[in-house]
Amino acid sequence: MISAALEHRVRAKELLNRVTSPQEAASLVEDGMSLGIGTGDSIACPKTFFTALAQQAKGRLRVKLFTGGPVPHEVDGLMVEADAYERRFGQFSNAWLRDAANERRFPLLDTRTGTLPHQVRDGRFGRIDIALIEAAAITEAGYIVPTTSLLDAPSYAVLAEKVIVEINPQVPPEIEGIHDVYIPEVAPHRKPIPLEKPGDRIGTPYIPVNPERIAAIIESSLPDNPPPRAATDQNSQKIAHHLLEFFSNEVKRGRLPPNLLPLQFGVGAIPDAFAAELAKSSFTDIEFFTGTFGDGGLDLIDAGKAKALSTASLYLSQEGFQRLYRDLPRYKRYIVIRPVVLADCPELVARVGLIAMNSGIEVDIYGHVNSTHIQGSRIVSGIGGSCDFMWNAFLSVVLLSSTARRGAISCIVPMVTHVDHPEHAVDVIVTEQGLADLRGLAPVERARTIIANCAHPDYKPLLSQYLEEAINSRGGHEPHMLEKAFSFHLRFAETGSMKP
Amino acid sequence: MISAALEHRVRAKELLNRVTSPQEAASLVEDGMSLGIGTGDSIACPKTFFTALAQQAKGRLRVKLFTGGPVPHEVDGLMVEADAYERRFGQFSNAWLRDAANERRFPLLDTRTGTLPHQVRDGRFGRIDIALIEAAAITEAGYIVPTTSLLDAPSYAVLAEKVIVEINPQVPPEIEGIHDVYIPEVAPHRKPIPLEKPGDRIGTPYIPVNPERIAAIIESSLPDNPPPRAATDQNSQKIAHHLLEFFSNEVKRGRLPPNLLPLQFGVGAIPDAFAAELAKSSFTDIEFFTGTFGDGGLDLIDAGKAKALSTASLYLSQEGFQRLYRDLPRYKRYIVIRPVVLADCPELVARVGLIAMNSGIEVDIYGHVNSTHIQGSRIVSGIGGSCDFMWNAFLSVVLLSSTARRGAISCIVPMVTHVDHPEHAVDVIVTEQGLADLRGLAPVERARTIIANCAHPDYKPLLSQYLEEAINSRGGHEPHMLEKAFSFHLRFAETGSMKP
Repeated sequence: MISAALEHRVRAKELLNRVTSPQEAASLVEDGMSLGIGTGDSIACPKTFFTALAQQAKGRLRVKLFTGGPVPHEVDGLMVEADAYERRFGQFSNAWLRDAANERRFPLLDTRTGTLPHQVRDGRFGRIDIALIEAAAITEAGYIVPTTSLLDAPSYAVLAEKVIVEINPQVPPEIEGIHDVYIPEVAPHRKPIPLEKPGDRIGTPYIPVNPERIAAIIESSLPDNPPPRAATDQNSQKIAHHLLEFFSNEVKRGRLPPNLLPLQFGVGAIPDAFAAELAKSSFTDIEFFTGTFGDGGLDLIDAGKAKALSTASLYLSQEGFQRLYRDLPRYKRYIVIRPVVLADCPELVARVGLIAMNSGIEVDIYGHVNSTHIQGSRIVSGIGGSCDFMWNAFLSVVLLSSTARRGAISCIVPMVTHVDHPEHAVDVIVTEQGLADLRGLAPVERARTIIANCAHPDYKPLLSQYLEEAINSRGGHEPHMLEKAFSFHLRFAETGSMKP
Repeated sequence: MISAALEHRVRAKELLNRVTSPQEAASLVEDGMSLGIGTGDSIACPKTFFTALAQQAKGRLRVKLFTGGPVPHEVDGLMVEADAYERRFGQFSNAWLRDAANERRFPLLDTRTGTLPHQVRDGRFGRIDIALIEAAAITEAGYIVPTTSLLDAPSYAVLAEKVIVEINPQVPPEIEGIHDVYIPEVAPHRKPIPLEKPGDRIGTPYIPVNPERIAAIIESSLPDNPPPRAATDQNSQKIAHHLLEFFSNEVKRGRLPPNLLPLQFGVGAIPDAFAAELAKSSFTDIEFFTGTFGDGGLDLIDAGKAKALSTASLYLSQEGFQRLYRDLPRYKRYIVIRPVVLADCPELVARVGLIAMNSGIEVDIYGHVNSTHIQGSRIVSGIGGSCDFMWNAFLSVVLLSSTARRGAISCIVPMVTHVDHPEHAVDVIVTEQGLADLRGLAPVERARTIIANCAHPDYKPLLSQYLEEAINSRGGHEPHMLEKAFSFHLRFAETGSMKP
């Protein structure tokens, strides 16, 4: 029995014989297989398929899963519960997966979002057996029209032996045309990528997979369940305010064009606060070149500020998706959804002159950034696309609150316990306390600036004391006292607070 | 009085009236000015100019110096002695400069070689007043033909208000034609860089500076003084052997093409040993895309192995330069000298699919690399181009001995005291003990592999003990005991050995 929705959306009628149940589709998966997934948190994720797979997997099979972006509980939660991961590659946000990774119940590979599909393609991790793609439609020629995310879906769809398509009728068919699918060649055959501006379109509006490899088509039966919009807070607003002031000054000094350079930021309270500040600002014609965006992106389009918004995925709230769907033709004039190998591409990040804005768990007085591991050991978030953005940006900005846990943790520390982004990849640090412009500063100058401008007043004396004692007792270009470098963290582990 | 050499080499006869003494040229420099230097260690560096400048500078002026590569004692040594640096940007190798940086007598900015010229150009460090370029000739049109290095010379020559050219008659005029000068636009006007293969030529064989800005021309009067060829050693040979074996296996498995992918390595004993192994191997038609190369590069050309050698500079030995000069027309068929903004360019590193091979001071059990600071504090080497190579390579390989100081130091440690290259940028680690292929491994798997394959037997039990205790007492995705993470380093500081 093929539903009316599928009859309508599968336009290649000869593929209608591939329509099957989620259970049948899931039975194509065998023990030890590698699955590549086109992701998105709730919307854009083939969660009906994974719900069926997790049910069948328990005790029967384990798979390797490759994903660019975080996936919802229907994937990571259920698969972890079913003990169905042999190995898990890529970004995540699910708490069950995070706990399993910290208990090392299976190996979690915290890979770089923009690099993973290239690495998969060069064969270092073996082949991809099945790609799982959520789609809005299949075209007359049998090509796949994705929904609100591309990320690594096109890479896996092209690589995999079989492709399983989950059609999601909750996504309006008018989403078609928002995508720009272009997959760079791999070395030694790679050519210059012909994209110059965030709004350029250089590919196709569908994933051009050979229809013969579409092994199954199923229909989504689970409701999309995006999160509510993140509430704003005072710290985020202050951070956004410092940042806008900095950009205004850079323009005044002639170091940034009047419409800035293309901006990258993620989702959450700080990006939303920044988008709100930007919407009120005098900047216009702003371009965005980012891996994902939230409701703030729609706000900027509505405020007439956005010239083009290039992204690999939409992580909107429930309300944000409703806004998008209500007015899709208008939003489509601004938004381009691309594969992550373009969205997070070092070549393009450098070419467009990206202003990268990323968060961190903690930064140290010399500007090294920890964005993944608490107390050096416990992973709380994957690295995602931040390496490819920060390491190749025109300007790399780190945004975070000066404290966490109601002040018990200083997010500015003598030495971070895990380095994801070294000093060589950080230009500016912003907290609610202020902004530290580290460009052109030597390590001790950076330390004084970060402590003075970014640290919370409760921790300034402690940080200054560490710095001056390190300078006087050890010296060197970047003075540290190794026996005291983690004193803040050890105090917290012992007393529950970094305060003495 | 214009020498016969200058009469011959300055082909734009209207510029002969700019010929002057080193002292006159040096007097153009004023207190607080920014100087950009086209570098090279001894050869390719305007050392006659700097010798004169250092003499005049003492007590009279301080300058900001920008350089891509390390410069010889005639620059860094004499300028440090004259207390003539207000601020110093870029790579270095001089011991006097290193000591001054560690005593923080002036701010040393350890910038990324490939990125610095772009950053200078965007204005964040102010303007460049004078560019100092060593040249083999000035063409009829007044353009500058450099010697054996380009690095950031073209960027500064184009940016600076004035250009001072030091003609070095010790370099044969036949060097002309070896260079390929192309400077990418800056954002928001940057276009795809039209280079696809290491041997491609996309620019001009000279630096196209407006001749009106050539403020002075002087003649080199100091002898070029390149170092002797680095002696080989057993550890380097073992490292090279492990690496060759790895590449052979990758080709057998179909994960690398039969002629490999373009290779990047630096200068020193390990690169020379690797070049020697490669020269004996069955690999042919090998391409090199690197920031610099030493005598090993010539060996590979002579052995008929090199298809093309793209570099920003030649750091040959005395003997190597003699070889090069004797047979320049033949070597020029293989060698292309490029600006560092191309040689170390993330876009091109990713496009050619670079196999990056770089050294480190120490690596930790999880694969983080320290390449600059001893005991977390004391800088021993600048970061150079390693970020741009390692962070964007197809395959990033770290080469180092398992121990230093006759075994008193383990170069594999629980946690490195300074991170220049995080785990996200490292694929393979090689010591004389063996090779650790980290691709596809989670942190604890990486730790076990590094300890088993790369650590020195004297330190294996200590490292394993740390790892297992961290797993059992702390747990987490990447288990660490913060109070013991630097126990090796603290023991060394106390007793002179990392051994208990």
